[in-house]
Amino acid sequence: MQTPITKDSISSAHEKIKPYIHRTPVMTSTGVDEKAEAKLFFKCENFQKIGAFKARGAMNAILSLTPEARSKGVVTHSSGNHGQALARAAKIVGVPSYIVMPHNVPDVKKRGVIGYKGTIIECEPTLEAREKGVADIIKKTGATEIHPFNNYDVMTGQATAAKELFEDVPSLDYIIAPVGGGGLLSGTIMTTKYFSPQTIVIAAEPEGADDAFRSMKSGKIEPSQSNSIADGLLTSLGTKTFPIIHENVEEVITVSETDIISAMKFMWERMKIIVEPSGAVPLAAILKSKNKFEEKRVGIIITGGNVDLAKALTLFNEI
Amino acid sequence: MQTPITKDSISSAHEKIKPYIHRTPVMTSTGVDEKAEAKLFFKCENFQKIGAFKARGAMNAILSLTPEARSKGVVTHSSGNHGQALARAAKIVGVPSYIVMPHNVPDVKKRGVIGYKGTIIECEPTLEAREKGVADIIKKTGATEIHPFNNYDVMTGQATAAKELFEDVPSLDYIIAPVGGGGLLSGTIMTTKYFSPQTIVIAAEPEGADDAFRSMKSGKIEPSQSNSIADGLLTSLGTKTFPIIHENVEEVITVSETDIISAMKFMWERMKIIVEPSGAVPLAAILKSKNKFEEKRVGIIITGGNVDLAKALTLFNEI
Repeated sequence: MQTPITKDSISSAHEKIKPYIHRTPVMTSTGVDEKAEAKLFFKCENFQKIGAFKARGAMNAILSLTPEARSKGVVTHSSGNHGQALARAAKIVGVPSYIVMPHNVPDVKKRGVIGYKGTIIECEPTLEAREKGVADIIKKTGATEIHPFNNYDVMTGQATAAKELFEDVPSLDYIIAPVGGGGLLSGTIMTTKYFSPQTIVIAAEPEGADDAFRSMKSGKIEPSQSNSIADGLLTSLGTKTFPIIHENVEEVITVSETDIISAMKFMWERMKIIVEPSGAVPLAAILKSKNKFEEKRVGIIITGGNVDLAKALTLFNEI
Repeated sequence: MQTPITKDSISSAHEKIKPYIHRTPVMTSTGVDEKAEAKLFFKCENFQKIGAFKARGAMNAILSLTPEARSKGVVTHSSGNHGQALARAAKIVGVPSYIVMPHNVPDVKKRGVIGYKGTIIECEPTLEAREKGVADIIKKTGATEIHPFNNYDVMTGQATAAKELFEDVPSLDYIIAPVGGGGLLSGTIMTTKYFSPQTIVIAAEPEGADDAFRSMKSGKIEPSQSNSIADGLLTSLGTKTFPIIHENVEEVITVSETDIISAMKFMWERMKIIVEPSGAVPLAAILKSKNKFEEKRVGIIITGGNVDLAKALTLFNEI
């Protein structure tokens, strides 16, 4: 596997983005450890700027552009955390950002982008329309596209979450990240290779969007069926993330929707933190595979805490 | 004002209980600061053992007993966090605990006590029945009553939360604690006097249980009307807490139920932490009195995070 992600590039990304991100805390919980029968260390990216790890990758990507490219602004199509993260990063460096979004996304997501002075371009809710929206902006403004995950600078930025976790908690037996497009997971893999090579990387994924699980088996990128409440994990892998994941992940553990909601509720109740569905997928995987992790030291990256409270509390009532 | 709470007794309590409590983090939030137009530092006792600051006072009280008294066990009537905190403290030192509770308290509260091997004594839901329940246990077992707040060792234990906050965040202009029986508030006052005398102490209280506000005016302990979702703040002041509060609190700010629910929801959404209604009362007070706190550095003690999630959903849907 050849990637431009090196030990030095991760360290350098970390130094570059440090002034603009939180060094999030690592939390532990006796109650959760007792249930899991393991020693768990949660890297709380729900406390990160914009409420998710995506602040890291977007910030690194924008700081990695040449001054000339940067001055023309950045564009992406993302209705989720990456859109907001990119708008925030662009605002920090004082350049325009263009976020292409389907017209039917909830107002709260639009407000998140507008709050960071991002320009929203509305489109039809299809991948074709989104891609055309991005292409149009590039043609018109010369902005650079920053893909949510299939971009080495983004992946390198996401890699810094695991770096901080290893700095704070040595000797982890396992590290678990959830997998959607694979930006966080591939970044976590590269950090583990360079900074904690004895640690085994596990991926966690919803059964209703188990394209990474299937891609590991088939050896090629499989499409996602995109059917899960873990809305950060619905995309399929990218051409840059898949090879890293395929070569280095020991296992992709898949979990049911009920597993995810139960784990999320348990984290809210016992850890007193708000975790989004995607962020609860790794704990759900541990609770499903207790034998594997028994008495082990396991690092977990909580993706974020961006969840509609009414929706989450309604889910809890259903299980 | 004469109290047995001294600078040394607070420091000594802190050293004694340290092995058994969390040093909880102090959180800040740009989003919350922007809304409050002040610089806020939240002492997160929602991450404390048993999910509330009460773990401190109960632990200090039980460690302060003579070995002989301790061996006979401890008793209290509390259906809330103190009952669970006392059962936990008793279990840690290996002595029996007896928690007198009305028979109609939710099962979850009973399970909390039973999980720490506490013995539950059920009684009728009246103060008389609770007090008789305690008296009967004392007669039968020789156990020592540990009152939830009107007890100097408990108050001294609660004082350690503010001590940690001052250690982590110097130069606070204000410190705000909510007030129910006044254990946390009086402890916070004593710590402030000794460790940060330039800081002004403010109390925050629900309008529907504004007995402290009225007691400050009348100069004597007024009964509480006990009408608020902030269920940790419903009791009236005690004979040991009132004199300290009366002499040292600059102002008691009262807030409406809507203020409390809005502040709680805002903390969940922006800080990504689970805060119980009582824990949101200080932020509600700041948002109601913006002029007073404008541009000030304000320490806030979040009491805890023990809230029924289904109930929280109902509350959020109401505002």
